[in-house]
Amino acid sequence: MSVAASSLAGMTNAHDVVAAYWAAAEARDWTAFGALLADDVVYRGPQTREQVRGREAYLRFNVEGFRYDWHIAVQRIVGEGRHAASWIEFDGQEGTQPGLCFFELGDDGQIARITDFWPDPYELPASRAHLVERY
Amino acid sequence: MSVAASSLAGMTNAHDVVAAYWAAAEARDWTAFGALLADDVVYRGPQTREQVRGREAYLRFNVEGFRYDWHIAVQRIVGEGRHAASWIEFDGQEGTQPGLCFFELGDDGQIARITDFWPDPYELPASRAHLVERY
Repeated sequence: MSVAASSLAGMTNAHDVVAAYWAAAEARDWTAFGALLADDVVYRGPQTREQVRGREAYLRFNVEGFRYDWHIAVQRIVGEGRHAASWIEFDGQEGTQPGLCFFELGDDGQIARITDFWPDPYELPASRAHLVERY
Repeated sequence: MSVAASSLAGMTNAHDVVAAYWAAAEARDWTAFGALLADDVVYRGPQTREQVRGREAYLRFNVEGFRYDWHIAVQRIVGEGRHAASWIEFDGQEGTQPGLCFFELGDDGQIARITDFWPDPYELPASRAHLVERY
């Protein structure tokens, strides 16, 4: 068992792993964060078609890619088997934005794949305006 | 037990309910779709701040709000307790777009709350361009 995998001891499901992932990110505890990741983790952002491969590159992406004060508030985590999804609110330099993430865990419980979505506000289409209310 | 609730017999978890929800939508089986919804279901789209309350209004929203040929391909469903999340690809009049949905079920297993996100493509920020590859 690797050092990284051993630190996952006691985490019995994908929900717990993803809760620890967001807690480590918010704490800037990159050691704990890295320990949750598979060596060959693959991160994808489909909206930009950006991809990061491997724990070291993904750590650097997180540490160096967002050089401003940011905070995460977890709204929801759903875990089932090796899969999980999270809905966070990300408070950064452009205000607060929802972030939706889908995770896949590998055999050893480490995070092997992350697919990340950042929806922006848009105008309500006129075609359904009569069918909704605003909040 | 209501007629709607009785048709949920055999669905033991949120994953199955959400799988049935998307299957009914794709089949335009609005009777089956409606049977999965709580009377007082609340739908929210945070990006437009649109909201629809109640089964009848939400059925009308789905039937009348998207008057073009569309198809759904489910990529992932994750269910845990009364919560579920789905990632679909929606093929509509503007091409294919990911849709992320978070669901809450009520006591009787019907869908009580839906929060729906539609992320659009955006430009990769220069600040992290050196930290990623494109796919």
